[in-house]
Amino acid sequence: MPVTITDPGDPRVADFRDLKAGDRPAGTPRGTGPVIVEGTAAVERLLLSPYPLRAVFGVPGRVEDLDLPDDVAVYVADKWVLSEVIGFRLTRGALASADRLPPADLDALLRGADPAAPRRLAILEGLNDHENLGSIARSAVALGIEGLLLDPRCADPLYRRSVRVSMGHVLTLPFAVLPDWPAGLDRLHDAGYLTVALTPADDAVDLTEVDPREHTRTAVLLGAEGPGLTPEAQRAARVRARIPMRSGVDSLGVAAAAAVAFATLR
Amino acid sequence: MPVTITDPGDPRVADFRDLKAGDRPAGTPRGTGPVIVEGTAAVERLLLSPYPLRAVFGVPGRVEDLDLPDDVAVYVADKWVLSEVIGFRLTRGALASADRLPPADLDALLRGADPAAPRRLAILEGLNDHENLGSIARSAVALGIEGLLLDPRCADPLYRRSVRVSMGHVLTLPFAVLPDWPAGLDRLHDAGYLTVALTPADDAVDLTEVDPREHTRTAVLLGAEGPGLTPEAQRAARVRARIPMRSGVDSLGVAAAAAVAFATLR
Repeated sequence: MPVTITDPGDPRVADFRDLKAGDRPAGTPRGTGPVIVEGTAAVERLLLSPYPLRAVFGVPGRVEDLDLPDDVAVYVADKWVLSEVIGFRLTRGALASADRLPPADLDALLRGADPAAPRRLAILEGLNDHENLGSIARSAVALGIEGLLLDPRCADPLYRRSVRVSMGHVLTLPFAVLPDWPAGLDRLHDAGYLTVALTPADDAVDLTEVDPREHTRTAVLLGAEGPGLTPEAQRAARVRARIPMRSGVDSLGVAAAAAVAFATLR
Repeated sequence: MPVTITDPGDPRVADFRDLKAGDRPAGTPRGTGPVIVEGTAAVERLLLSPYPLRAVFGVPGRVEDLDLPDDVAVYVADKWVLSEVIGFRLTRGALASADRLPPADLDALLRGADPAAPRRLAILEGLNDHENLGSIARSAVALGIEGLLLDPRCADPLYRRSVRVSMGHVLTLPFAVLPDWPAGLDRLHDAGYLTVALTPADDAVDLTEVDPREHTRTAVLLGAEGPGLTPEAQRAARVRARIPMRSGVDSLGVAAAAAVAFATLR
């Protein structure tokens, strides 16, 4: 039975307080706050994900639409109280919070459930824009990428804005941080991956000439919007490849480039 | 010689006043305000575009970096005055305004400079999100799409946020509104185009099986995030095609789908 919240200061909805302020509760380290999920479609994806649900909060009409387990804490409020708690007007009407989980075990992520099965990963370097990260995660899930590896400078993929832009799909995509960057890419080479560094450079090979069928396992590396992959990361990868582009155009956005690369290498 | 602005109310920088308020000056019809371009890279693209430059406004350090024609009105201000005029803090430090031009002539856009040359267009239906529109325009230019056709419900591609997300590339992409939607698609068929409606529906053909080399001219149709293309638009197109996706995932974002489609059909 949902609990009705009438006081915006109610401690029971502390998970959802002042969400615009930043990516975590004040004074706590990065990547430590609960995972916040916005909108009924994304909350439904959370329910199918491994992240343990903490609480649901929304307007009654939207919360009713969710097929929630019996033991979950459910809070409802009118839209004014809801907006007052979260700090902005939420048109989607429902949120959920979930506990973080430790990142995936790197060896397990590289190996997969079946060591002989084809496997495709994406590796992101310096991706510090939460929206690009969320967009890449959504495309990754849609286009059959099975996991995400992040260099130590990447943004938090579980931050609210990443989760929102991914439409909740990032919650179903295992990810791990690759330490010892970029030398750690040899962990992928040892596990049989062809690593493909994406760059707009003229001397890179055409991505459409990298035949994924020749390689059981591929991992595509993408750098941040603007700088792109560092020379060190490009050197550490087995292949440097470019998406064929009209000359004179600097490059695709990183989220668009990721989608094209994922689709091309399938 | 740049004119220094010290009074935020100075009428000479009226083009740049209160940019956050909306997509046009108060009380004027949609799509009538000047084109506003943010950031030196995008301003440089404006200089190469057909849009007539009206004025440049920014902090001295950034404005100096631009290679501007002699006869253009150039205004500089410190960052506080600049922010006060435009209504937000601009980290990129330079803006420009330009006159709108009438949309491209539809027949000329369909025909191209050389009637025998291959030609690829994108057609957008109900794309009412300026950022998606900008992102699609950027990918279109990078991936060799030669023009954009918009149904009457699409957002204004020259609105500030579209221009910004496109990194100014939308200014180099001709566009026209296709009246009589979707029956007007027959104008494309008469001009020799294969029209390809993108949909995640199971009964659509695999996009990778649509061979663009069999067709000198192709036009790919995309609908808005969420609803996608209307059934009427799908019926009016020659082919319905889908991007192969992992089952159970609803779909790619429209900007990612556009990039994949443009890359696949080249």
